[in-house]
Order: sequence, then structure tokens, then C-alpha cells
Amino acid sequence: MKFQFVIFDGVEELDLVGSWELVGLLAARKVCEPPELVTLNEMTPRGEHGMRFIADIHFKDAVPCDVLFIPGGSGGRIVMDDQEVVDYLRDKGRTCEAVLSVCTGSYLMQKAGLLKGRRATTHWEHLHHLRDDPTIEVCEQRYVNDGNIWSSGGVSAGMDMMLAFIASKFGETVAADVQLDAEYFPSDRIYGTPQERSDVSEYIRNLGKKEPASK
Amino acid sequence: MKFQFVIFDGVEELDLVGSWELVGLLAARKVCEPPELVTLNEMTPRGEHGMRFIADIHFKDAVPCDVLFIPGGSGGRIVMDDQEVVDYLRDKGRTCEAVLSVCTGSYLMQKAGLLKGRRATTHWEHLHHLRDDPTIEVCEQRYVNDGNIWSSGGVSAGMDMMLAFIASKFGETVAADVQLDAEYFPSDRIYGTPQERSDVSEYIRNLGKKEPASK
Repeated sequence: MKFQFVIFDGVEELDLVGSWELVGLLAARKVCEPPELVTLNEMTPRGEHGMRFIADIHFKDAVPCDVLFIPGGSGGRIVMDDQEVVDYLRDKGRTCEAVLSVCTGSYLMQKAGLLKGRRATTHWEHLHHLRDDPTIEVCEQRYVNDGNIWSSGGVSAGMDMMLAFIASKFGETVAADVQLDAEYFPSDRIYGTPQERSDVSEYIRNLGKKEPASK
Repeated sequence: MKFQFVIFDGVEELDLVGSWELVGLLAARKVCEPPELVTLNEMTPRGEHGMRFIADIHFKDAVPCDVLFIPGGSGGRIVMDDQEVVDYLRDKGRTCEAVLSVCTGSYLMQKAGLLKGRRATTHWEHLHHLRDDPTIEVCEQRYVNDGNIWSSGGVSAGMDMMLAFIASKFGETVAADVQLDAEYFPSDRIYGTPQERSDVSEYIRNLGKKEPASK
């Protein structure tokens, strides 16, 4: 299986690299091919927080892939005005086994028509953007899968999505290996009280809540 | 406060970028200066899984910083044979407000003498390396702080460490803002049964265990 990761000027660094790491660990175990970095504009894009990358290939020259991964970041809202980018993403939605987005990568999915009639999510601060599109069923979950389309909440949420994707395609044992390699057993420490806000995703409002004793 | 992130050929991508993102979000809130990427060898290093980066500056030309961050990756075991690198890291241990390592970044800390007489940790598969040094008190925790030295378990563990560091330096409210920006409320989904292994860190063996009802 061949994974390609989209990059562009103004990409949110962790959106991209959280899932890249998990796929890299998968490739190190020879379960898939090494991932590739496909730029939508500059060959040396700069991340939202100033980290500079070198892309492997430009999207106009990219060979087919099985899985396309679309990170978020403010630069995505610029690159989505390029009709060639939109056409490229639309084509991937038709031909790929899966297309995954993190955070505002969902804007690009939406622009390319990939979320039409689908359940999807995005960073909690940007849910309104998807809600403005009546063809999308917005879910306030950490990640959502609908057909060949996967989408996740903000930044770090992509890692939970990618692990679930790996489990769905390669099985629980492979997902367990990758999780252990990455030591992805995060602390459940919550700073402040985000659960008490009305503007966050439902899953955040429910953090730490116990299941009702009886239903 | 000025953060510098060390990079080198063969860096583990998420070790570096997980914490970079959190500091980037801190900088976006004007709480600290934008972070910088300081290379220990190549100006365009390639990560363990093939991602290519462009460093901001070479360590020989780097200006002083308040916080130095050292990621892991197999390349660290090569660069630590460079005496100038070791001297540079040793100097940072003396002059910085804090030096933090993720995963096998601890090897570089150890080589530079920064872990002498300290409690410290590393990726669960590499604990034996620190245990070979009788001057280190090895802790099987997700992250450890001892004086101006912070260290964490493998790959993703650095994010929990960095959030705790941010809370300790800038307060809980700032840590809460960054956690919410990054939507760092990970799923507690564990694939497989890593808790049943004897070779993992103690905190992994204790995952999901309930506190005893009475002590």
C-alpha cells in the first residue's frame, strides 16, 4: 500500500507529522511502502510555525497512490483556490482506497466535493465551516469514517484516526505494534476545564464523563 | 523565552514535531519567541522515515537559547560521536533554563553528562542503555523532571512532557490554551495488550489499571 502525504506552505506541522510517523513505523515493519511527501505548491514549504520541509514531488508529477493524507493549516485555504489542486484532490477521492484529512484539511476535501453526502469532522473552532454546507453531516467526534473518506478533529486528532485506519486495513495486531513503537499511550491529563465550554466538539465536552450506570 | 530544537540526519520525525507544534502554538499566542531548528550535522537532514527538513542554523553558529530540546532517532547515535556536539550539549546543560529529551535523545544527554545523578527515562526498548550507567536513576514513567533536565519515553511521550513543561513555566491556563489549540485530548484506545508485556515501561504495564479501592 502506497501512502502519499500532501504538504503546502502554511501546513500545520503536527497535522502532517503525527500520522506520517505512524505510517513510517508501518513502513519500517515492511507492511507498506515508505510514505511520500507531495507538495501542492512550493517544493520547500514552510509550516505554520516556521518549520521548513523539502517535498519529494510536486502533485502535477505524482504517481498514483492508494491512500492520500491531507493535513490542515492556514495555507490550505490559499491552495484550495487553485483549480488544478481541486481537480487533483477530486480525482484522488475517486481513485484512492482512502483519503484522510486532519483539522482544516477538511476544507480541501469539501472544496473538492469529497465530503458531499458524507459524515465528517474538523478542528472544533472550524466546525461552522462544514456546517455551512448542507450536504455534509457534521460529527463532533475525534475522527469519523464514511466510505473511503476519513476526517479528524484538530492537529493531534489525526493520530487516533490513523491508528484506527491502520487497524481497519492491517488488523489490530499491526496497529498494536505501531502504537507500541510510537509509545502512543498518552496521558489523560486535561489542563483547565475545556469540557465546560459550549463551543468545543461534543467529544471534548464529554471528556472524563462516566457512562451512565444503567441505560 | 527562546526554544531551540535540535535536528540531525536520522531524527525520529514525531519526536521533533510533536513538541515543536506545542511550542509553535505557544509562540502564536506571543507567550514565547518562535522556535528555531538547530542542526547537529546536515543543513537538510532526513528523518528516520524519510521526511526531509531544512534547518534554520548550524549548532556552531547558534545563538544562546533558554530551552534546548533533543529528539531521538537512530541518527543521534552517530552524531554523539562528534566531540564538538558533546561539548555543545554539555554547555547547554550548564547554561539553559531547561534541556528536554524525547526517546533516545536521552543517549545524547547521557553522553554529554547531563543525566549524571539525575532521574531520567527513554523509549521502553532502550531503558537498558540508561541502566548501564550507574550514575542515572532510571524511571519507567512517561516523562521525568529532575532539576533543569526533562526526559520522556518514546516518540509521542514528548508531547505530554512538553505540556507539563509549559504548565510549569507559564501556568495551567496557558497549558490549557495550547492543549485546546492542538486538540490534544487523545483517545485512550489501546490496541493489543501491551500491559501484559514484561519488557515495557512500568507506566505502560499499569495502563488502565484501577487504583486500589483502599490503601
